[in-house]
Amino acid sequence: MSELVEEFNGYRSKMNERMLEENQKLIKRVFSLDTIAFQEGHLPIKTKELLGLGNSLVLRCDDCVKYHLQACHQLGLSKDEVFEAMSISLLIGGTIVIPHLRRAFEFWDALENN
Amino acid sequence: MSELVEEFNGYRSKMNERMLEENQKLIKRVFSLDTIAFQEGHLPIKTKELLGLGNSLVLRCDDCVKYHLQACHQLGLSKDEVFEAMSISLLIGGTIVIPHLRRAFEFWDALENN
Amino acid sequence: MSELVEEFNGYRSKMNERMLEENQKLIKRVFSLDTIAFQEGHLPIKTKELLGLGNSLVLRCDDCVKYHLQACHQLGLSKDEVFEAMSISLLIGGTIVIPHLRRAFEFWDALENN
Amino acid sequence: MSELVEEFNGYRSKMNERMLEENQKLIKRVFSLDTIAFQEGHLPIKTKELLGLGNSLVLRCDDCVKYHLQACHQLGLSKDEVFEAMSISLLIGGTIVIPHLRRAFEFWDALENN
Amino acid sequence: MSELVEEFNGYRSKMNERMLEENQKLIKRVFSLDTIAFQEGHLPIKTKELLGLGNSLVLRCDDCVKYHLQACHQLGLSKDEVFEAMSISLLIGGTIVIPHLRRAFEFWDALENN
Amino acid sequence: MSELVEEFNGYRSKMNERMLEENQKLIKRVFSLDTIAFQEGHLPIKTKELLGLGNSLVLRCDDCVKYHLQACHQLGLSKDEVFEAMSISLLIGGTIVIPHLRRAFEFWDALENN
Repeated sequence: MSELVEEFNGYRSKMNERMLEENQKLIKRVFSLDTIAFQEGHLPIKTKELLGLGNSLVLRCDDCVKYHLQACHQLGLSKDEVFEAMSISLLIGGTIVIPHLRRAFEFWDALENN
Repeated sequence: MSELVEEFNGYRSKMNERMLEENQKLIKRVFSLDTIAFQEGHLPIKTKELLGLGNSLVLRCDDCVKYHLQACHQLGLSKDEVFEAMSISLLIGGTIVIPHLRRAFEFWDALENN
Repeated sequence: MSELVEEFNGYRSKMNERMLEENQKLIKRVFSLDTIAFQEGHLPIKTKELLGLGNSLVLRCDDCVKYHLQACHQLGLSKDEVFEAMSISLLIGGTIVIPHLRRAFEFWDALENN
Repeated sequence: MSELVEEFNGYRSKMNERMLEENQKLIKRVFSLDTIAFQEGHLPIKTKELLGLGNSLVLRCDDCVKYHLQACHQLGLSKDEVFEAMSISLLIGGTIVIPHLRRAFEFWDALENN
Repeated sequence: MSELVEEFNGYRSKMNERMLEENQKLIKRVFSLDTIAFQEGHLPIKTKELLGLGNSLVLRCDDCVKYHLQACHQLGLSKDEVFEAMSISLLIGGTIVIPHLRRAFEFWDALENN
Repeated sequence: MSELVEEFNGYRSKMNERMLEENQKLIKRVFSLDTIAFQEGHLPIKTKELLGLGNSLVLRCDDCVKYHLQACHQLGLSKDEVFEAMSISLLIGGTIVIPHLRRAFEFWDALENN
């Protein structure tokens, strides 16, 4: 597996586990809502993941972008669909989004080359 | 037409016109990109408008939310689909989004009662 | 009761009710977490409300600031304590916070004159 | 004087006074830094006010934008200069800035018609 | 001392010194306000540091979070108190805060293992 | 050339090329607007780059700050002018900007030592 992807997933899993170890009710519940939020509902899962991706990109959170890129990739969304969704976030969020877009493209390529 | 909707559209049109009157190349081009961005592409228009809505909600821009709510309504997206998209933005953007959600619900009701 | 306070509470209650009417699981759960978050825990309620206030102020959400100002007032926090907490948010959040601080002071005075 | 401008300045003065009344050392010092920041220095005042305007616009603070628009107007900056500066902020900050740009144009027109 | 903590403090001290070397009045004064802000006042220092931590977390500034975590640790705040304060910021700031929370937990553990 | 500067420029060029390779009309157009925005207009290029720098700093985008610092350096803006512009952004954006300012100073020094 690509080093970039592996490193991201490794740190993410390790620290999520670490956080849930603590008995912080609020943190645990927010985590469980996070699972519920991206399940099939009135909207299909693919649309929900694109929403998660777009929201994360305008809020300029690299790790959140990576997480949703990976979910999009696993769901079989095409590169064109994913990049088009991100281009909308670029327009809405402005050129300040560009550095995050660079890292997003790099991560997507790593996902495809896995 | 509902007063809330009418007022929003009236001010928006008047000031957009005012802005384009000025010979500011950059502003004009950003406006024309805005039109291109929400046209049918790899993703269907409905998905794009939901993306516009979600992005606007986490960035907490009431007027942008209203604009995309109106577009979603005109495209025939259901209340359940629209509210579900917004609930994802609430989770990602946090409870700080709630006041904007209140105004979004109010505007959606105004759209439905038009 | 002061008009400013009454208007704020009236709209807030009405629209919260409206939102919970919808069967949006995610929205309902976020609302219930919001209640849990500000209950006595390892930290006293007063500290938690000051945290809610400070967080809301740097995120520049007027309605959230008003909500937590009201809670602080009801808990008997003094003006000096509340304003000092807000002054920290001014420093961290920058002068961009000043317009929100103006409205916060106005709302606090309305709470005191109730 | 235009009602829009008058109302803005009236509320601003009243509440600034109210804030400085309190004995909050930190708030007072931030206010005095605000005065220092926009005095002639290595950069001319006009450039500094354009910086204040641009920063306020990407942070999407309407009142801060109005304040710096007024300062720019008083310093004799031309409409073209001011609007060009704002167009850069539109590009960097994204279309989410557009609603704030509408209100900025409206306020500028009010300043010119004073 | 833990490498993570040492590296953070080393770079921070070096660059703070570098910044104050320059004769930028405004920067120097903001730094001195930063010292004043977290001194005993109407609120106890512990509460102030929790406020600094919470504000930094919702604004998603890793270095600021680390700085206040360290101050909280030195003041003897317990892990439960600190994590509870951060859980409020998670709720208010949304799941976009999670990646910063991961790094915060990691840094806290490093502080405890020093 | 300084390693810091070289690394930044290398990654930036590589990934910009990668992004433009894709046939994403919207992304390409935003990139071309970015070129137009910083050309001589009603405002001199130097002022425009200072605006780009200041906007990027309050939005806390390290890569954008580095890009505009480099442009300022190439245009012959003095350290005093550049640092003064950044000090305004520190005041408006708050102490949350400080970590980005540290990295900005470091990058400027690297540019000067090239």
